[in-house]
Amino acid sequence: MEEKKIENEKPNPPESAPSENGRKTERHIRPDLTAVEIHHGRRQGDSFVRIIRADEHLKRIAPGVLRADEAASVAQKGIGHSLARLKAFLVGKPLRSESEKDERLTKIKALAVFSSDAISSSAYATEEILIVLVVAGALGLNYALGVAVAIALLLGVVSFSYRQTVHAYPHGGGAYTVSRENLGTQYGLIAAAALLIDYVLTVAVSVSAGTAALTSAAPQLFPVRVELTVFFVGIITLINLRGVRESASIFALPTYAFIVNLAAIIVIGVARIFLGEAPVELTPNPLPHDLEPITLFLILHAFAAGSVAMTGTEAISNGVPAFKKPESQNAATTLTVMSSILAFFFIGITFLADQYQVVPTETETVISEVARAVMGSGIFYGIFQVATMLILVLAANTSFSGFPRLAYVLARDGFMPHQFSFRGDRLAFSNGIIYLGILAAALIVLFGASTHALIPLYAVGVFISFTLSQAGMVRHWLKAREAGWRKSILFNATGALLTAFVLVVVGSVKFFLGAWMVILLVPILVAVFNLIQRHYRNVAEQLAITPADTALGKPIKQLTLVPIHSINKASLRALAYARTISKNPVVIHLMHDLEEGEEFQEQWKRWANGTDLVILESPYRAFMEPFLAYLDALQKNDPDSYVTIILAESLPAVWWQHLLHNQTALRLKAALLFRHNTAVIDLPYHLRK
Amino acid sequence: MEEKKIENEKPNPPESAPSENGRKTERHIRPDLTAVEIHHGRRQGDSFVRIIRADEHLKRIAPGVLRADEAASVAQKGIGHSLARLKAFLVGKPLRSESEKDERLTKIKALAVFSSDAISSSAYATEEILIVLVVAGALGLNYALGVAVAIALLLGVVSFSYRQTVHAYPHGGGAYTVSRENLGTQYGLIAAAALLIDYVLTVAVSVSAGTAALTSAAPQLFPVRVELTVFFVGIITLINLRGVRESASIFALPTYAFIVNLAAIIVIGVARIFLGEAPVELTPNPLPHDLEPITLFLILHAFAAGSVAMTGTEAISNGVPAFKKPESQNAATTLTVMSSILAFFFIGITFLADQYQVVPTETETVISEVARAVMGSGIFYGIFQVATMLILVLAANTSFSGFPRLAYVLARDGFMPHQFSFRGDRLAFSNGIIYLGILAAALIVLFGASTHALIPLYAVGVFISFTLSQAGMVRHWLKAREAGWRKSILFNATGALLTAFVLVVVGSVKFFLGAWMVILLVPILVAVFNLIQRHYRNVAEQLAITPADTALGKPIKQLTLVPIHSINKASLRALAYARTISKNPVVIHLMHDLEEGEEFQEQWKRWANGTDLVILESPYRAFMEPFLAYLDALQKNDPDSYVTIILAESLPAVWWQHLLHNQTALRLKAALLFRHNTAVIDLPYHLRK
Repeated sequence: MEEKKIENEKPNPPESAPSENGRKTERHIRPDLTAVEIHHGRRQGDSFVRIIRADEHLKRIAPGVLRADEAASVAQKGIGHSLARLKAFLVGKPLRSESEKDERLTKIKALAVFSSDAISSSAYATEEILIVLVVAGALGLNYALGVAVAIALLLGVVSFSYRQTVHAYPHGGGAYTVSRENLGTQYGLIAAAALLIDYVLTVAVSVSAGTAALTSAAPQLFPVRVELTVFFVGIITLINLRGVRESASIFALPTYAFIVNLAAIIVIGVARIFLGEAPVELTPNPLPHDLEPITLFLILHAFAAGSVAMTGTEAISNGVPAFKKPESQNAATTLTVMSSILAFFFIGITFLADQYQVVPTETETVISEVARAVMGSGIFYGIFQVATMLILVLAANTSFSGFPRLAYVLARDGFMPHQFSFRGDRLAFSNGIIYLGILAAALIVLFGASTHALIPLYAVGVFISFTLSQAGMVRHWLKAREAGWRKSILFNATGALLTAFVLVVVGSVKFFLGAWMVILLVPILVAVFNLIQRHYRNVAEQLAITPADTALGKPIKQLTLVPIHSINKASLRALAYARTISKNPVVIHLMHDLEEGEEFQEQWKRWANGTDLVILESPYRAFMEPFLAYLDALQKNDPDSYVTIILAESLPAVWWQHLLHNQTALRLKAALLFRHNTAVIDLPYHLRK
Repeated sequence: MEEKKIENEKPNPPESAPSENGRKTERHIRPDLTAVEIHHGRRQGDSFVRIIRADEHLKRIAPGVLRADEAASVAQKGIGHSLARLKAFLVGKPLRSESEKDERLTKIKALAVFSSDAISSSAYATEEILIVLVVAGALGLNYALGVAVAIALLLGVVSFSYRQTVHAYPHGGGAYTVSRENLGTQYGLIAAAALLIDYVLTVAVSVSAGTAALTSAAPQLFPVRVELTVFFVGIITLINLRGVRESASIFALPTYAFIVNLAAIIVIGVARIFLGEAPVELTPNPLPHDLEPITLFLILHAFAAGSVAMTGTEAISNGVPAFKKPESQNAATTLTVMSSILAFFFIGITFLADQYQVVPTETETVISEVARAVMGSGIFYGIFQVATMLILVLAANTSFSGFPRLAYVLARDGFMPHQFSFRGDRLAFSNGIIYLGILAAALIVLFGASTHALIPLYAVGVFISFTLSQAGMVRHWLKAREAGWRKSILFNATGALLTAFVLVVVGSVKFFLGAWMVILLVPILVAVFNLIQRHYRNVAEQLAITPADTALGKPIKQLTLVPIHSINKASLRALAYARTISKNPVVIHLMHDLEEGEEFQEQWKRWANGTDLVILESPYRAFMEPFLAYLDALQKNDPDSYVTIILAESLPAVWWQHLLHNQTALRLKAALLFRHNTAVIDLPYHLRK
């Protein structure tokens, strides 16, 4: 490819530079940016040819293959350059595609990235249970530990199921993949829609809750809570755009601070109880007077309320490929560690709340009461509250890992726009991250950063995907019948039934509080997914080439037209260009009266002779319509032939001057935009002033 | 031109249609839409050639000259057709350029078109004088007739001056032309700016006043007065877009109704006074108690206030070319008739107001009081009030004649955008009409259709142009020294001094009430006019060709690039097209990793062999920047060569599908839009579903 055709190519002309002693050098630049220098000596045969590299930023790595270096990958001048510098400052310099493997997570970091959502839910799950049970008084509260243990068992079941999934789907197998492969595409899409919604809600709820913790401590920030929450979302978005490894480093500290703190509280608290010590400080809150009876429904309601603890459990199974090798093993271990920590925290806090007879109040959270009962209101309590706030804000980060990955998988399968499958400068799925940030910010503004308003929408999506995922695993065992499938199927079926039951309870309890929006949105999203996929499939079918399509590459017929209003440098340049792309371009001139046309003909004869001229008289002073009628007439007999229209445009040097030019060209381009077999070329003539 | 090159032209291929008995016919369509049919008989030499007309709507009227008929001048399908039909319904069918001479006005119609502004001012001019003089009590009111006579004399002087102008400038010589030719360009532009402002204000003030008359009679319409006023402006705009003759027919009736009514009132009123009859009904309003002394300033103030009667006088001098031949003579006669009517009305009303001791009140206009005093509150009074309202609304029409004509003259001289010099379908200067409508509507919305708020801005502009125009005529006489120039110069100098004096008085009295806006806007507009003209002159200089520029028409060098992401029907079509415009197009493929590139190379070898392929590896996953760096490298050595970039775009059948396509192509086009010597061709591949 590279040595041939150098003579008739001549994209750039030989530059003849006569040097000293009558020698001269010609230089051709070829399309692959090699430059051929031909040095002519004074005598015949004295010439020699040298092939040099033409560009320092586009390195030739193989015949016909150029590699852009970093400088050639960012804008080097103008506004683009300033924007690129701002972006580099905010999200870091671009990373090479090959660096991808370096961006894997150790288990320690993966726990911080994927578990903040799940573990942070221990900060409010116990409270959700107690709020339901307190209506039955002290007797009701005694059931809390049982409910917590039941949820922890359910968590165990779900966690065990996901361990199997992680091994069965090492390339990332969230609810979408499992449901799709085992139950069918539409179930997969339902799970995907539910998860996408839940990711957005996780960000909105968690960051709003974190801001609420902050504004409780600093009430002067309360009036700007919406702005503050959106700002936090923006910060998390930027951190994620930097790429997954760095975000892990940033998020590890608060997550582990929360884990260590809470673990210490539970251990010390349990030890104090077994040593028979009284709470450090705790004034028991009064229990309600009008007691309701303890019914099965009340217990189930408590179970449903406490099951918000389970949100975030699925994150790891989606993110397997982000782990260091062996990915599946590391992911499974991290999943088990995460579930164990969460179960330990959940049962521990509920046990302590039960022992200390903590009752939920309007003014203080249950976890805060428990912490004070164990450690008093000293410095450790303050640190723990700050860690709680941080992990709540950072819980959003789990979604920032999950959402873009799920969007990528959906885009890869053609259910979402292709944009979501591109990796950004920093190898993160930038589009998914940015859209998640924008959607969450929109929700926050819409709901005024109120956790209370957002929570009813929450968790419905997660239980839809749990149910579908576990049901999918049931199918999986039925098909695979691997060793131990009977035990596994029992386990998964139980999980599927339990999560399905919780879904029904959560969906009905929260329906009129907002869950209806999610229940409505899921089928809409599924319909959109299908619409997009059908479109992409149609396009692929229409564009696909078969071995029979050999005529496709053959030249096609085209006529080149140059509409010229008056003979000047711009129009002659356009005509000269037309001559390079056509042997016989046709000048077309529109006139309003015959005299003007004759004048033009005179000019044309003088300056553009040799080209054909068609004068189109328009007695009604229309331009567009006669021109289109002319094109119609030309193409009527042969609709497959192309018409190329070259528009000479004078491009002003200053923006406002555009208002004084090219209105006709603009209208013509708009009219031709969707016309079949019509190519329009703007040939700008750059004015200097 | 037309018989040559038929063989190598072939914009459309010969269509071979084998007919019965083995004969066949080939048809070529040539660029001038003649079709050549070659009929091949069975034997050699049996062929014959027939030249036929190829299109019924584009008639061939000379070699290479086609004429579009009416059907080819309006859109024949799609939204464009519907819009064209709506437009034909609203403003009428397109008129041929040749019909222009038919669109001239008789004196009777011209009076209606050009005088409604001037004559309608008699409806409020007397009142303006009385409002000033009433502060001096009955004694002050006695001066009203004197002031009115003085203004009428001034009107006579100005009118006489404009008669001379009409003869000296038969192609339309308003203040702009006269000032420019005799005082210099900048004075002409000041006059033009002042007039343009005043035209817009005339529309806003007159239509607002007309609506106020209507809403006084029908108070339930008061809350929608702004909408109503804008609606009236829209109606007048549409009527004017239909063209000048028809608008004359529509406006004649109310104008003549007002003239006949008011003339009758004055004649009967004067007759009654000389017959010694008392007013039919009139309760004299009380005069103010705190009387001010009669000072020279008070008299001058009254004179300035009453001089609003003179707005509109200049309209005819601008519109001379709209008259039937002999234009100047007819225009001069119409001008004299108009001034005489206005002077007669103005003096007559003031005389009657003086005789009947009418005092201006908040609730009733002076002209209404006079009318009731002469005729009582019967049916004739009602008719007269309606005629007053109509002529006030229609006074705006004078501006709709004047503004577009002045804008046309300015555009022709390069001081306003060229768009203002185009005639629309109906031969009216559509752009000027539409802009005037929009600006007036904007003013009406801004000032809440309040005449009271708008009037202080009014009349300043008119006196600027009066002064400049008369001063220009003084210069004219000094230069021309025709017979009787001494008398003329005295007359004009008096007029110039008087109008200059009135300008100073009006400008200072109304300065803080809003006249400052006009006084500020005039120099801004003049600066813009100069800026536009300098730009057009610069462009013309840069584009002008001289006999030395013979190299301009020579072919230029260009390299054709086809960025291809994957091999499919759309990209192969683009490549096929590229081959028709270039001997050796270069396919450029951007890849993120080498494996993908190898795969592409395989495909390219199979489907696009024979073209050059350049693979651009972008390890940082950027697309735009490496591509631009590549173009820079190609053009570095020869900045005068062109690069043609052919973009294959899949064009979806449904609008929302655009969101799923061509984001990259769009960004690329934006980045290349202002790049030197780069032509971008969109080659759409139309998807069917």
